[in-house]
Amino acid sequence: MKSYREELWMEVPARRGLVNITEKVEAALKESGVREGLALVNAMHITASVFINDDERGLHEDYEAWLEKLAPHEPVAGYRHNRTGEDNADAHMKRQIMGREVVVAVTGGKLDFGPWEQIFYGEFDGRRRKRVLIKIVGE
Amino acid sequence: MKSYREELWMEVPARRGLVNITEKVEAALKESGVREGLALVNAMHITASVFINDDERGLHEDYEAWLEKLAPHEPVAGYRHNRTGEDNADAHMKRQIMGREVVVAVTGGKLDFGPWEQIFYGEFDGRRRKRVLIKIVGE
Amino acid sequence: MKSYREELWMEVPARRGLVNITEKVEAALKESGVREGLALVNAMHITASVFINDDERGLHEDYEAWLEKLAPHEPVAGYRHNRTGEDNADAHMKRQIMGREVVVAVTGGKLDFGPWEQIFYGEFDGRRRKRVLIKIVGE
Repeated sequence: MKSYREELWMEVPARRGLVNITEKVEAALKESGVREGLALVNAMHITASVFINDDERGLHEDYEAWLEKLAPHEPVAGYRHNRTGEDNADAHMKRQIMGREVVVAVTGGKLDFGPWEQIFYGEFDGRRRKRVLIKIVGE
Repeated sequence: MKSYREELWMEVPARRGLVNITEKVEAALKESGVREGLALVNAMHITASVFINDDERGLHEDYEAWLEKLAPHEPVAGYRHNRTGEDNADAHMKRQIMGREVVVAVTGGKLDFGPWEQIFYGEFDGRRRKRVLIKIVGE
Repeated sequence: MKSYREELWMEVPARRGLVNITEKVEAALKESGVREGLALVNAMHITASVFINDDERGLHEDYEAWLEKLAPHEPVAGYRHNRTGEDNADAHMKRQIMGREVVVAVTGGKLDFGPWEQIFYGEFDGRRRKRVLIKIVGE
């Protein structure tokens, strides 16, 4: 069994933003030499997500509005977590809706994707450096 | 390491619907010959889900009502994504709540399930042919 | 390829509660002898979750309030599932938001975690014994 590990460093300049990391995962897969197996891609921070969806700007704006509706940032004092001095409790909620990780099949040395699947890093408490982990196992 | 891949074709006749695919995944597992490992089952489309829950009709009606409340289909023009000519932005939201994929342990050649676990395909933008990917790795 | 399986028995004395199971997963990983691979940790019951987030009491209270807002327990009769004699339909909803499972990379014999990642069992219909499955594959 082969095993490959890589970290991606992310730095989203705003509090929230989505970054397409598909090409970086593809590059890691190529580097790994794995032809058949599984690729795990996960946020290493608990106020961020890795998820698969469409690379369409309107949809990303819809996600922003929708997540703010389901788990609003304001009022900051409405969350007990923020009494610790943080202001990111909403980010911990948003990350649960969007998910921590994706597991992608590797077939013939490629990410085994449907026609529109793209991998995104979802940042909900940005303006600092954070990491994504790629772990690929197989042979 | 063994590796097995299969696609399931789905065609839900309504916009939304849930389909129990547990037996199809079990058949794929048998075909794979894998006794110990992991089975990944994921929607290949970004307006559909694969998830594990109960096969109970009332619950499925509750999911329908609940997802419509959290991410309503109407008004279609309320989503920026729908300005592209689509009317399925809500389906991209619903799929994030229900999830893209499940990873199931394979033990002794069987899906290693608790008493009520069943695998469902969740369609949120149906009336066309779409695919589910089954990837099984192990030995 | 090595494969290891362990069940954790949980018994949360209230209807809802969060339990940090990180140390138990670490102990299972040590027992498995796996150095490189993947660890799957999933709820075996469909009214419970396994998820990764922060071990901070205020945040856990925020999750409780937030999940009750998105999928309230009351009115019990508001869910069709509860006509079967159950009162746990809301628990099936809450579990979908928080997720069934996590997949964690194993690197150098350790859970390959970011600085704050902790694994939780999320109980939404407790006061009885329920199980979590740990499945570790690798070498």
